[in-house]
Amino acid sequence: MHIRCQQEILLESVNTVLKAVSNRTTLPILECILIQTKNDKLVLVGNDLELGIESTIASDILEPGYVALEAKIFSEIIRKLPNEEIEISVDENYMTTIRCHNSKFQIAGQSGDDFPELPKVEKLHGVTLPQPKLKDIIRQTHFSIAQEETRPILTGALMQLKDDGLNMVTVDGYRISYRHTDLSIENDNVNVVVPGKTLGEISKILSTEDTDIVTIFFTDKHVLFDLGSSTVVSRLLEGEFLRYEQSFSSDYETKVLIDRNALLLSIERAALISREGKKNPIKIQLTSDKMIITSNTDLGTAREEITASLDGKDLLIAFNPKYLIEALKAIDDDQVEIYFISSLAPCIIQPVKGNDFKYLILPIRLSA
Amino acid sequence: MHIRCQQEILLESVNTVLKAVSNRTTLPILECILIQTKNDKLVLVGNDLELGIESTIASDILEPGYVALEAKIFSEIIRKLPNEEIEISVDENYMTTIRCHNSKFQIAGQSGDDFPELPKVEKLHGVTLPQPKLKDIIRQTHFSIAQEETRPILTGALMQLKDDGLNMVTVDGYRISYRHTDLSIENDNVNVVVPGKTLGEISKILSTEDTDIVTIFFTDKHVLFDLGSSTVVSRLLEGEFLRYEQSFSSDYETKVLIDRNALLLSIERAALISREGKKNPIKIQLTSDKMIITSNTDLGTAREEITASLDGKDLLIAFNPKYLIEALKAIDDDQVEIYFISSLAPCIIQPVKGNDFKYLILPIRLSA
Repeated sequence: MHIRCQQEILLESVNTVLKAVSNRTTLPILECILIQTKNDKLVLVGNDLELGIESTIASDILEPGYVALEAKIFSEIIRKLPNEEIEISVDENYMTTIRCHNSKFQIAGQSGDDFPELPKVEKLHGVTLPQPKLKDIIRQTHFSIAQEETRPILTGALMQLKDDGLNMVTVDGYRISYRHTDLSIENDNVNVVVPGKTLGEISKILSTEDTDIVTIFFTDKHVLFDLGSSTVVSRLLEGEFLRYEQSFSSDYETKVLIDRNALLLSIERAALISREGKKNPIKIQLTSDKMIITSNTDLGTAREEITASLDGKDLLIAFNPKYLIEALKAIDDDQVEIYFISSLAPCIIQPVKGNDFKYLILPIRLSA
Repeated sequence: MHIRCQQEILLESVNTVLKAVSNRTTLPILECILIQTKNDKLVLVGNDLELGIESTIASDILEPGYVALEAKIFSEIIRKLPNEEIEISVDENYMTTIRCHNSKFQIAGQSGDDFPELPKVEKLHGVTLPQPKLKDIIRQTHFSIAQEETRPILTGALMQLKDDGLNMVTVDGYRISYRHTDLSIENDNVNVVVPGKTLGEISKILSTEDTDIVTIFFTDKHVLFDLGSSTVVSRLLEGEFLRYEQSFSSDYETKVLIDRNALLLSIERAALISREGKKNPIKIQLTSDKMIITSNTDLGTAREEITASLDGKDLLIAFNPKYLIEALKAIDDDQVEIYFISSLAPCIIQPVKGNDFKYLILPIRLSA
């Protein structure tokens, strides 16, 4: 193999596929980036067998071929080179020479023959949306993916095509995040669970330009995100996801309309006193157009008061402040509505406009 | 005690004295910030017995007094409060109430009686310089303070008043950093060693405004930095510092004039291949107006070539790349001169203009 390409372009591509390179593995080939010529393009691939990313860039192909290079040292070299033309040549023993301006590196590569191919995913009935929108959807749901492996299916996010759009739902046993996005869909029979790690990594490579689009294709076993110059393929998680729909009841006894940012800051302050999280909940008291938040631990006490527009009964309820903080941060709107049934039932937080986001949070039982 | 002050002003003061608060200590009072009224001002103090910082701010004193508050929770509360008026009141049991807007915190304080006073330092024969200049001096020498405790005196920096100015010198066994600053001095008999930690912490609170000045006072046991609204007092290290002057010989066999940034980038790239540091030195070959840098390890090889203006004999010499990188980063000038005697003798790096900085670095012996 012998190619030439621009440093800046190669570096972006390397950074993209790095997201799928395994850090610790028993299979050393997975710590490599595969570099291969394909017609007049250069294709880079990272693949940790759960997640695979392929990136295609313009390149001057002097001699076709392929090589697998240890991702860490290769990416560090490309990152440190100046933005000029880089020349890469590989000899018959996979010894790889990288030249740029007055720099020359030689590193031992290996045959790419053992490098696992990306799963083939048929591109049928894809759904298309702007990349920043998918980035938002992930940001607004990713935080409540279960961290523990006790129910492996909950370490992923449910993606559904239904109700004329895409639903993304995450559940960690104490809360549910739901986000609906209206989209034109050709297939409303999709119900898959995508690993949390896949969504975290893809979120990092999604663009913030509204004109950049992503098309998502689903099969029984895999999901493919086509970003144009790069393609992300991930295995799906197998199993039955939580039937979340019935949890979002529309009944309520108490409804509160409140300034999102004021509430967020007050909870963050009260949480300073309940550093231990779940063991030291914060208490919320709703009464006559006020929300009073209190916290009381060995460290001391905190009391916050916020104006709120109350509809229904007075209420006293307690929460792990972390769950409220994360839900309130995920919402962009200025005001939120919170629906309560009782001090033992979950509350539902949502922006004032529409049903596109819903966050359900379980309370903590108050000791008498 | 009962006072009122503005959140922004109090927070800046808390952040300043926090630098001297001990994180882990057997004396719990040292984990506190002392807050005391002094005439019509509020004085905050942090003191870990090696380093003490006092900060004075404007405040509305309703009732004089003092209290010691656990620094972590107190600073977190002040940080999270809005920039409005904060009211702090302390009862006879040191229970402390902090009010701001609609927030109210109560935390248990303790009597400030056990809080160690800052050492008294007589303010005689001080030297005055702009704060950003002292910040620069520290940045340009701090990196070569010894990390290991084998020779405790080298874990500090030598500060000397002599040669019509201030010298700051640090030594870690493999290299010496020297920085001279011309200043008006009344006393040229100062030769003290300031702990590296003190310089690191003070550097964080020094302003970047040229109009902000710092005056430094020395005694046999202490150094005091008067920053105007705050005062930093540190113990000195006891012992004999390295007699560095004789190390900076002005003889040379080979002198090189080279672009600082090009050299820095080349060494950083070559260092990628010698990740292990000292065990894998980089080699520098000087010949006919070129510097060739090579590195050769299990990972592969690197070769860099830079144009250089050579005066004297050709030379082959090896270094730990980290030491060269840190010295080159500390220099702001575009070009540097490097003086060599032989492949076994230290080299001296300095900017082209003047003798204000000098960096001496020991080479690594090349195996045959």
